[in-house]
Amino acid sequence: MIRIAIFIFDGVEELDFVGPYEVFTMINEVYQSSGASKAVHVQLLSETEGHITGAKGMRVLPDGLISSSEHWDVVLVPGGEGVRPLLENANVLDWLGRQAQHVKWMTSVCTGSMALAKAGLTKGKRVTTHHMLFKEFVKRELDGTLVKDVRYVRDGNIVTAAGVSAGIDMALWLTGRMFSPDLARRVQSAMEYDPKPPYALSDAE
Amino acid sequence: MIRIAIFIFDGVEELDFVGPYEVFTMINEVYQSSGASKAVHVQLLSETEGHITGAKGMRVLPDGLISSSEHWDVVLVPGGEGVRPLLENANVLDWLGRQAQHVKWMTSVCTGSMALAKAGLTKGKRVTTHHMLFKEFVKRELDGTLVKDVRYVRDGNIVTAAGVSAGIDMALWLTGRMFSPDLARRVQSAMEYDPKPPYALSDAE
Repeated sequence: MIRIAIFIFDGVEELDFVGPYEVFTMINEVYQSSGASKAVHVQLLSETEGHITGAKGMRVLPDGLISSSEHWDVVLVPGGEGVRPLLENANVLDWLGRQAQHVKWMTSVCTGSMALAKAGLTKGKRVTTHHMLFKEFVKRELDGTLVKDVRYVRDGNIVTAAGVSAGIDMALWLTGRMFSPDLARRVQSAMEYDPKPPYALSDAE
Repeated sequence: MIRIAIFIFDGVEELDFVGPYEVFTMINEVYQSSGASKAVHVQLLSETEGHITGAKGMRVLPDGLISSSEHWDVVLVPGGEGVRPLLENANVLDWLGRQAQHVKWMTSVCTGSMALAKAGLTKGKRVTTHHMLFKEFVKRELDGTLVKDVRYVRDGNIVTAAGVSAGIDMALWLTGRMFSPDLARRVQSAMEYDPKPPYALSDAE
């Protein structure tokens, strides 16, 4: 059983964490459809009791707290405007540092990579973040070599995804890596993730 | 100001509603970045007070209840295993029927189209649902002509999306339709929705 903790906090961007949450929890649905037992244990963790309020206003109750001494195989830090206060939050940064000593994979989506950097986990590593926030990453003098025009970057056991929806692609890659490409394809099919955005992005960028 | 209600319920599939929620709420962020006021009012509505628990276990607090007499410009019904009890829930089906008399757009994601059908809104209409659940739609003798191999179908003011992640594509299309393709592109860019699934689906289907 692979234990996966997704950290949520006030100001977290909603799709940043729900995209990977859907991918990871779908692993069990696919597994259990063939009669197997659970393959992953996925929990939303926050710093304090009670609901968090996301960047867009969605209120979510955590499944547990980071104050527990549990170790996790995978930790995911999403982004959102609420990441900025985390960069000064010793409690959260210490938790990330402690988890990093045991995790198989330390991951982030969007500006979540700023928290990994601030926790001292990205020194000399290739990382990414939201394409509109490369300048802020540099201005904050955070550790790491920024990689552009990718959906996610893996360097050692650190995997950082680009903005918001890129967390879905990263979580599917990680599913293929932790289990098998065949399982990842079945998760992708169950999510009907065969995306066809109605507009081309080129004109907006 | 366009008023958008997303209906949530026990057993709702998490990404079914959070994908479109992210798209619709990002409209305001893009608008407000150029100094404009809010363009949309997006609310998560449920049938009863207190949190709902999604199909994968995520607990979300609603912003309001369907018992209020408010009218909405857009109603979205997501899918998930929790749709099946809704098909026998007169309170919810009546609400959908009443909203349908006033909405500009009645929309669904995944098996949410079964609820629209049961509420009597899809007679003679082209609709879609999750690709693995076409058989169930037919077996239940629901109204509507099923369209396969599409991300979403529009027939009149009814727009139904395919499974789970297809709601993102549908919501972006609707954003382009309600505002402009340029705004939809800017929302898409802010979400960094330039998807690159790591695996091809063909082997799983």
